[in-house]
Amino acid sequence: MKQKDPRTHRREAKARGTKPAATAAAPMRVAIIGFGTVGSSVAQLISAQRKNGVRITHVFNRGVARKRVAWMGRDVIWTERFEDLLSPEVDVVIELVGNVELAHRWISRALIAGKHVITANKQLIARHGGELVALAQQHGCRIAYGAAVGGVVPVIPAILEGLAAESFHRISGILNGTCNYVLSRMERARIAMPEAIAEAQVRGYTESDPTSDLDGEDAAAKLVILAAIAMQRLITPEQVRRQSIRTIDPVDFDYARMIGCTIRQISYAELNRKHLIAAVQPALVALDSPFAVAHGSDNLIAVYGKHSGRLLFAGAGAGGDPTAVAVLSDLLAIRRGHSPAAHSAMATTEVRGDLGARHYLRFVVKDSPGIVAGIAAVLARYRINIDALMQSSGHPADRLPFVITTEKSPADKVADAVREIAKARYHVQPPLNLPVLDSL
Amino acid sequence: MKQKDPRTHRREAKARGTKPAATAAAPMRVAIIGFGTVGSSVAQLISAQRKNGVRITHVFNRGVARKRVAWMGRDVIWTERFEDLLSPEVDVVIELVGNVELAHRWISRALIAGKHVITANKQLIARHGGELVALAQQHGCRIAYGAAVGGVVPVIPAILEGLAAESFHRISGILNGTCNYVLSRMERARIAMPEAIAEAQVRGYTESDPTSDLDGEDAAAKLVILAAIAMQRLITPEQVRRQSIRTIDPVDFDYARMIGCTIRQISYAELNRKHLIAAVQPALVALDSPFAVAHGSDNLIAVYGKHSGRLLFAGAGAGGDPTAVAVLSDLLAIRRGHSPAAHSAMATTEVRGDLGARHYLRFVVKDSPGIVAGIAAVLARYRINIDALMQSSGHPADRLPFVITTEKSPADKVADAVREIAKARYHVQPPLNLPVLDSL
Repeated sequence: MKQKDPRTHRREAKARGTKPAATAAAPMRVAIIGFGTVGSSVAQLISAQRKNGVRITHVFNRGVARKRVAWMGRDVIWTERFEDLLSPEVDVVIELVGNVELAHRWISRALIAGKHVITANKQLIARHGGELVALAQQHGCRIAYGAAVGGVVPVIPAILEGLAAESFHRISGILNGTCNYVLSRMERARIAMPEAIAEAQVRGYTESDPTSDLDGEDAAAKLVILAAIAMQRLITPEQVRRQSIRTIDPVDFDYARMIGCTIRQISYAELNRKHLIAAVQPALVALDSPFAVAHGSDNLIAVYGKHSGRLLFAGAGAGGDPTAVAVLSDLLAIRRGHSPAAHSAMATTEVRGDLGARHYLRFVVKDSPGIVAGIAAVLARYRINIDALMQSSGHPADRLPFVITTEKSPADKVADAVREIAKARYHVQPPLNLPVLDSL
Repeated sequence: MKQKDPRTHRREAKARGTKPAATAAAPMRVAIIGFGTVGSSVAQLISAQRKNGVRITHVFNRGVARKRVAWMGRDVIWTERFEDLLSPEVDVVIELVGNVELAHRWISRALIAGKHVITANKQLIARHGGELVALAQQHGCRIAYGAAVGGVVPVIPAILEGLAAESFHRISGILNGTCNYVLSRMERARIAMPEAIAEAQVRGYTESDPTSDLDGEDAAAKLVILAAIAMQRLITPEQVRRQSIRTIDPVDFDYARMIGCTIRQISYAELNRKHLIAAVQPALVALDSPFAVAHGSDNLIAVYGKHSGRLLFAGAGAGGDPTAVAVLSDLLAIRRGHSPAAHSAMATTEVRGDLGARHYLRFVVKDSPGIVAGIAAVLARYRINIDALMQSSGHPADRLPFVITTEKSPADKVADAVREIAKARYHVQPPLNLPVLDSL
């Protein structure tokens, strides 16, 4: 291709109302907000790939003095003043802090100042994505967030670019690497959950407080973003039914295996004619399904299209380097002048959490005669049919775990029945109630 | 966004040297070459999604009279003259014929006339991709071929857009839906290959002559395209080591299972410091790997990145509707003004076919004393270590299948040894030699 004078290029770009893509002569100048694990990986990757024509001009962080590294080069400005990033010397702002309110304020100001923005902040995009995309369009610049879902798994660009012609009616996925690490470790080593969580912390897969991972907040935000992109439905993380994985016990993997299953944290959304089903919860999945094959901190996303059937995407869902690849790929797309398809025609919708599945009910009791009969009677009263009863040997009578699986039943009815059953005095710990998604 | 006068838009676009993306006011006008299964699906999908601002103006096919359908609308021109497609009324030409030489000529002429081009023609892109991309750039237009690899699995846009910042050193995949249908049917139903092939033909997964599928020509072309996109290496389909799946017997699935494996047609490329390994062949893969989980006509592609580790993509690899989704998604990307990252900095490289794997050797013999000792002696002479010997009961002595697995050995040495072993007179059919890729 003929090389054009960069000034001509800029003049034309200005005429058509968007910021110019950088040319070989004018590298794209990037400011990074937040210099933690991911921020540092992004900077390293950019430094290693100078040929891409990207240059870091600013690093903005609280207490930035302790963040300063020699390998970044002398011309980088290390700052604690956000305003420095609004300099005409900056083309793109990369936000890697995570806090929703601060990021919202910073990103809005950057877009208004005509900077392109890249963020991996899933809670921010889940709550303010539509508004920020509109703000970007209004100011002739672009916002990209490919790293917000699935880590390096390129599910967002794949849906927006490679599957732009398809409409999707179902999403099911393993969207949180920490939960998948914890559950697949419990499956393989039969260790208790606190031990598996400690391992995940040592490996850097989770924060010191893993609540948002374990209780489904993290995955719910990602599911909201996927529903927006793949189904054009606008929902909030609070509308997603959530259940923590904290109540899973190693013995649950033994019982799950008896019916050809294992346990994963599954994020699920399905578009019906009338409403959207959306839930994040631990669930039984078939051992020969791709969900069971996902181990460690991997993420796996399945989307179901009208013409395409089921499409799968899988790979590392966390970690500095993989996330940095996703962020830098967004940057290169912006450099080429690409922007994600707008979040247009978004519809709000009623949200429900009932997957209409079979259920796995695990009880741990101090054994005495009549317990099963009593539970069966309650289930019968709620018109819930029992599919199987499983009780393996080798457990002490004062702490006896056993399992009842039901036929397909409404989740609310099962929850009500379990709540009533839980009132009995023979329980040593609260009953566990999981959906069985063995035909995912 | 503010709506601009389309004339202004066109003027600016002309100034910057590329064809304009269509605006809402000016729909993108599309000519289709080839109105078979995929062509008809593409037309249906475009007709069903009129909101996308795409309009079909021409259908070009030999004997076009018998192709004409009423639902396409009156204003479509059905023609047998290619020149009609070079009319100023056409913005984009979609080529869905498959023949390499004709397609090469037509696409070159379309690009020279300033038309954007979309093709699903993998043999064409594998042989002339770089040249056609350069031709497109020269004439200010774009060529896209997302449907050429993986059917609707968006591996090409995912690598070019979502993983633009990553460099890849390994690709392994199931790239031919027919072979996967045939082998997974043989695995599940233990039917003979001719029966499984007939089933695949009934379901429309393969041509009346399935040679290109079974012998690996189809998959080799796709592997060449993936190596170009993911590794920037320019190789030809002829450089890819190919082995047909035709010699696989139902009994091979029994023996494979004894060592925790099944059999799939695997396309494999790996970039070493000195050369590229590239092969398409039936291979043993672990039963708990994603390759074994791929059933029916599914495709599965794994790419291994320096920073990302293994990334998986899977979904329908064939069929009119899925392919049409990939084609139309390319069209929408062109409409948004996007173009795939150029095939730049492509390097030629030495190509080898040796995966350095363990080997599975299956013999079918008329039993007599000393056969195993004789085979073992030949292998010893070639310094190939035997890992295991498997012979299951229940087979007739005049047609006895048994298996020897080797430790990791150079493929050429194993091939030489097997050639020598094959000279013995006790063989009822030629020995089978497959790599064991159980750590893919």
